[in-house]
Amino acid sequence: MSAKSPETRRARFPFDAIVLDDNGSEPITDQLEQQIKAAILERRLKPGDRLPSTRQLSSDLTVARNTLKNAYSQLIAEGYLIAAAGSGTRVADEIPDRVLQPFTPRRKHKSASSPTKVSSAAKRIQSFQPWIETNTNRPVRPFLPHTPSNADFPSEVWAKLTARRLRQSAGGLLDRGDPRGFRPLREAIADYLGSARGMSCHADQVFITAGAQQGIDLLTKLLVDPGDRVCMEDPCYMPAKFVFELANAKVVTVPVDDQGISVKRLYEKAPSAKLAYVTPSSQFPTTATMQLSRRLSLIEWARDSGAMIIEDDYNGEFRFRGRPLPALYGIVPETQCVIYMGSFSKLLFPSLRIGYLVVPDDLIDPLASSRWLIDRHSPLLEQAVLTDFVDEGHFARHVRRMRIIYAERQTTLVQAATDHLSDVLEVSPADGGLHLVGRLNTRVREKELMRAAMAARVELTPMSQFCVRETDTNGVILGFAPFSNTQIRRAAKQLAAACKGMQSQLDRQMP
Amino acid sequence: MSAKSPETRRARFPFDAIVLDDNGSEPITDQLEQQIKAAILERRLKPGDRLPSTRQLSSDLTVARNTLKNAYSQLIAEGYLIAAAGSGTRVADEIPDRVLQPFTPRRKHKSASSPTKVSSAAKRIQSFQPWIETNTNRPVRPFLPHTPSNADFPSEVWAKLTARRLRQSAGGLLDRGDPRGFRPLREAIADYLGSARGMSCHADQVFITAGAQQGIDLLTKLLVDPGDRVCMEDPCYMPAKFVFELANAKVVTVPVDDQGISVKRLYEKAPSAKLAYVTPSSQFPTTATMQLSRRLSLIEWARDSGAMIIEDDYNGEFRFRGRPLPALYGIVPETQCVIYMGSFSKLLFPSLRIGYLVVPDDLIDPLASSRWLIDRHSPLLEQAVLTDFVDEGHFARHVRRMRIIYAERQTTLVQAATDHLSDVLEVSPADGGLHLVGRLNTRVREKELMRAAMAARVELTPMSQFCVRETDTNGVILGFAPFSNTQIRRAAKQLAAACKGMQSQLDRQMP
Repeated sequence: MSAKSPETRRARFPFDAIVLDDNGSEPITDQLEQQIKAAILERRLKPGDRLPSTRQLSSDLTVARNTLKNAYSQLIAEGYLIAAAGSGTRVADEIPDRVLQPFTPRRKHKSASSPTKVSSAAKRIQSFQPWIETNTNRPVRPFLPHTPSNADFPSEVWAKLTARRLRQSAGGLLDRGDPRGFRPLREAIADYLGSARGMSCHADQVFITAGAQQGIDLLTKLLVDPGDRVCMEDPCYMPAKFVFELANAKVVTVPVDDQGISVKRLYEKAPSAKLAYVTPSSQFPTTATMQLSRRLSLIEWARDSGAMIIEDDYNGEFRFRGRPLPALYGIVPETQCVIYMGSFSKLLFPSLRIGYLVVPDDLIDPLASSRWLIDRHSPLLEQAVLTDFVDEGHFARHVRRMRIIYAERQTTLVQAATDHLSDVLEVSPADGGLHLVGRLNTRVREKELMRAAMAARVELTPMSQFCVRETDTNGVILGFAPFSNTQIRRAAKQLAAACKGMQSQLDRQMP
Repeated sequence: MSAKSPETRRARFPFDAIVLDDNGSEPITDQLEQQIKAAILERRLKPGDRLPSTRQLSSDLTVARNTLKNAYSQLIAEGYLIAAAGSGTRVADEIPDRVLQPFTPRRKHKSASSPTKVSSAAKRIQSFQPWIETNTNRPVRPFLPHTPSNADFPSEVWAKLTARRLRQSAGGLLDRGDPRGFRPLREAIADYLGSARGMSCHADQVFITAGAQQGIDLLTKLLVDPGDRVCMEDPCYMPAKFVFELANAKVVTVPVDDQGISVKRLYEKAPSAKLAYVTPSSQFPTTATMQLSRRLSLIEWARDSGAMIIEDDYNGEFRFRGRPLPALYGIVPETQCVIYMGSFSKLLFPSLRIGYLVVPDDLIDPLASSRWLIDRHSPLLEQAVLTDFVDEGHFARHVRRMRIIYAERQTTLVQAATDHLSDVLEVSPADGGLHLVGRLNTRVREKELMRAAMAARVELTPMSQFCVRETDTNGVILGFAPFSNTQIRRAAKQLAAACKGMQSQLDRQMP
């Protein structure tokens, strides 16, 4: 009945006699815990005693098994019990007195435990939190921007390539990888940039990142000292600004016009700077395209001011009209002042988390060491599958196909806005990108429009979300990429109806 | 013969008449480039003119196609030519004068372009580079440490689970993910920690990272201000020290004994501190295990000094003897001063890049915002597959199986060292972990042993690589995890032979 080995001895303590008060002020878990703890302290339960399984005891005491599990876990965590794999739970061999004395009274602080003391950087990050929350986790419905059409992604091809890689070379892909990125992928990207973007770069200059945001973070670490001036467009891509501010850079914002950042104002506001972050292919969020002469002036400014330029080409592939403009990178080959940044999030799918930088030769090693210190490298499997996807032509085919689909959706959105929303806002086609800007009619207020959109279950993104000084309360951003023509038209109608409803309400209030 | 549309007009310029000087001082690419450029400037090649394909022209001129491609790329990059997808290369419609004038003379700076101006952080990172290079990219042969046995990983199971996830829910997995991590994975980890490590934590407290290194980086950002004291073991895990130093923390190193970090010395050297980074399950690299009383003292110190503790439990699963010790985390449940850190790199495979933190409730939101700013989130597919791997029992099975395999390899290494290397070093078994420490006999110098190891093509890692102040030149680290018993024995014999050879050489030199 009772084996003598302390390892396996079944406890003689009458667990089934534990009395629990369902109406007591203490939760059942705590009552269980305290009674078992008391039994141990009073040596009614002895070192090595095996406890009944939670399954058995929960049935004996008619309490939920999870409640019992929690009590056991708690006692294990506190060192009273030991969970031995395969042999159940037993009383610890040694209960040091220290466990028992000093800490027990602190129990009452549990719910009111003092907050963790965080760094000043954490406080700054917390100040960004409202923006981040407002702009993420929004429902995917018209007109949510920044989202590609996942439904049109050739998932079967991707699955096939993944399966092949896992079958062929599982061993090789398990090993740790190169912080600079999977070499064949770097080569595939260099080839692609040469043919598609007219860029002359070598695989040695291509650095794989976990997406554009990591590229910005890595470059900031390597290029920006506290107090350095970093120039940005206004309106701008806010998440980049947050990263610069977190590095204690002095962010200088420069207004944009119909060609993107104003170089004249750059000279005025930042005759010297360490870095400029720009989006010449399609200014974010205005969609303005920078023409060649402005591009050359911008490079001249960079030389004059001693700045490096980050060219975020986040939408370079999706141009629907006009000839493809060469990237800023390499437009003047002997100038190594431009860093090119690309990402596959909007080209393929957002959860992939692969982007890349094209950098001057002497930045590759520092980037590699930085990446190694931050998170080592990107997972290998995705990199290998993406390499095959590019090398075997799926990538080019997908981009070509999506260019047509997106162009059509853009046209639908312009037409739907013209048909239904002309009282409220004016939408013009853009040369590229996955969203359009809607200019509000002068008598429409952003706040009211946003309220109407919420009523119509339509996602509108105010331009002001991206403005620093030049507060542009006269526009909204309308994403069209993942939505069918039908969805786009329906949402425009719904929004129009909600706007009318709101107007008639206002009319009633002010007769 | 000559279509009139400027889009498609074949150039009349006699490309095949280009004369190249094979013996000239200029490379062929440059000669080609200059002659085409001159033709454009002199209007012999006109805007819109289509150039011959590189395939055709390389055959006409008998130059390598790549040489020609480079010349074209260069001219495209400079804005003279345009590569239009599908319609070949043609002369740009507009050659702005500005392209031509100011930059051409700078050509000579090309090879001697000025180095990129980097931040002081980049300079510090460069100072870490030698260590990183010495300790990475080493051949996987005995006795390389820090590497699991990829050959024993159930790749087929992983492939099957991956295929199923891609088949079932490709759509859902393409969307952007939660910066805190894939919810079902967070739940699976909380369950696992409860049952396997006796930890009482909720999925809400589990935060998925791209591996332990990113965990350290994120926590440093959130908890450490410049000048703050961060305590580390000595010897220690250097990559963590680099991260703390990069954040301008004041790193205080504290000697370790046979139970890990000395709490007595912690009180002496750091009566107040912001953070301590420790490895209680298996001190890195000495493999010492911290017993319960030391753990409790450590927590007492953290309370007294106001410090948070990062418990890096990198090897908690691989314990071969002694009873499993509860994690530092939760040993005193009401104290929220311990952050638990785990990683799947050594448990599954290194290229996976998934780790996790268990943190006080109030750190989750700041962590999420930080992660969002750094790189958004980990790729979803791996997270989903790992969830299934854990939930369906493959993980527990794999860890159990590897515990047996690794225990056997450890025993083999101890035996092989005793049989063949007792003149040189002494190896004792460790309670856990994937490496052992070899203590050098007093008359053996580290440098000579390293030379012998190189000759024998055996990987030895000097302890001194991980020492800060307490320079321990009396030990080497021997990894055994990915090597068969035969490989381990053979390597020990080879090393013994090389050591003997070296000794007899020395004997000859000093007769």
